[in-house]
Amino acid sequence: MWRASVLTIFPQMFPGPLGQSLAGKALGAGIWGLDAVDIRTHATDRHRSVDDTPAGGGVGMVMKADVLARAIDAVADEGRPRLLMSPRGRPLTQDRVADWAKGPGVIVLCGRFEGVDERLIEGRGLEEVSLGDFVLSGGEIAALALIDACVRLIPGVMGKEASGADESFAEGLLEYPHYTRPQTWEGRPIPEVLSSGDHAKIAAWRRSAAERLTRERRPDLWAARPPEAPPKRSPKR
Amino acid sequence: MWRASVLTIFPQMFPGPLGQSLAGKALGAGIWGLDAVDIRTHATDRHRSVDDTPAGGGVGMVMKADVLARAIDAVADEGRPRLLMSPRGRPLTQDRVADWAKGPGVIVLCGRFEGVDERLIEGRGLEEVSLGDFVLSGGEIAALALIDACVRLIPGVMGKEASGADESFAEGLLEYPHYTRPQTWEGRPIPEVLSSGDHAKIAAWRRSAAERLTRERRPDLWAARPPEAPPKRSPKR
Repeated sequence: MWRASVLTIFPQMFPGPLGQSLAGKALGAGIWGLDAVDIRTHATDRHRSVDDTPAGGGVGMVMKADVLARAIDAVADEGRPRLLMSPRGRPLTQDRVADWAKGPGVIVLCGRFEGVDERLIEGRGLEEVSLGDFVLSGGEIAALALIDACVRLIPGVMGKEASGADESFAEGLLEYPHYTRPQTWEGRPIPEVLSSGDHAKIAAWRRSAAERLTRERRPDLWAARPPEAPPKRSPKR
Repeated sequence: MWRASVLTIFPQMFPGPLGQSLAGKALGAGIWGLDAVDIRTHATDRHRSVDDTPAGGGVGMVMKADVLARAIDAVADEGRPRLLMSPRGRPLTQDRVADWAKGPGVIVLCGRFEGVDERLIEGRGLEEVSLGDFVLSGGEIAALALIDACVRLIPGVMGKEASGADESFAEGLLEYPHYTRPQTWEGRPIPEVLSSGDHAKIAAWRRSAAERLTRERRPDLWAARPPEAPPKRSPKR
């Protein structure tokens, strides 16, 4: 069973939103597993300290290598990657999510305060993962995001209706625009082609819309598309 | 008071993790506010439908423009941006977080299923915001991340000890490595300079470490640093 082990000083944040919706139903059905380890249970002083002042001075507190190492070492590894949610990490991408979803699961350490002792990162071979170029108050919400992204790709979690094949980042493109009833809303009609019943034309329109959207909004993604993608077409609109 | 209004079909996911820790204390103290609007209360059929099949066919369901518009129109705007969490959006950055944190708050629509009707995005002027290049099962965890990032910058939420001035993305750099006691852990000493007591030397070491880290891990950030940043120094290591 795919399993996420989360190391945190806020174990009560889990499963949180992951206990609802499809991920929550699949968790209840035993399709995947989650355990939240309270880092404080691995502290040894009577205050249960997990942090201390930064060497060299400065604001904030730093999470202690010795306490975190005990918490990590108490989690059976089972071939799972040890991740640290941190804005200094490599930005998360759907490719890596897909890889982790295929594996045995993930171990995720949630940083708090100013950060964690660098020696812990080196000594336990933690892989730093960033959600994006912004700063959260801790790694917990980032861990929820990473686990949610993985879990929805585990067979049996999403319904057939949401297969993941057509969504953003498939083939390196943003997703095309969606429409549903009513046919006209506030004077805005659904694009005519979508009512044509011509599946090839609809597919071509969607492809071209996805390409246009990607070029306009994300020139970086557009430039980085894999070489095996079909040749660029001229936009139809 | 800074206020987040979240439109979702899972209002029970809020405040969730934002009800804990410093953000949760500040929420309880009335330093910021949060309301979660259940989109289903704005559906009009007896099944309380919020979604329908996609025009043009295909897998999944699309959130209806008419229902979402009623939900949005019921939220007093108060000059707040209307955001839609979506992988098609502009990637979230700390600069935008800082701007929103200074404003009156945010209105956040959480997409689910395949997405929302494009006409709603246009008709209500929604700004699509992406956490990063990965896909979540819905916008809720992304909204939690965005709100958390904003809330921690509101005066009175974080303690003085975590001012945000020294952290990742300040000056376009990743944060330097942190260390704390013990002096030697598993044979790994804290870098000597940090015990020197020489504040200028420590600051120079940290700056140089932050620059090296940014160059190595995020050449894209390094290249995009603002021109007013001090000139590049050679790494000390």
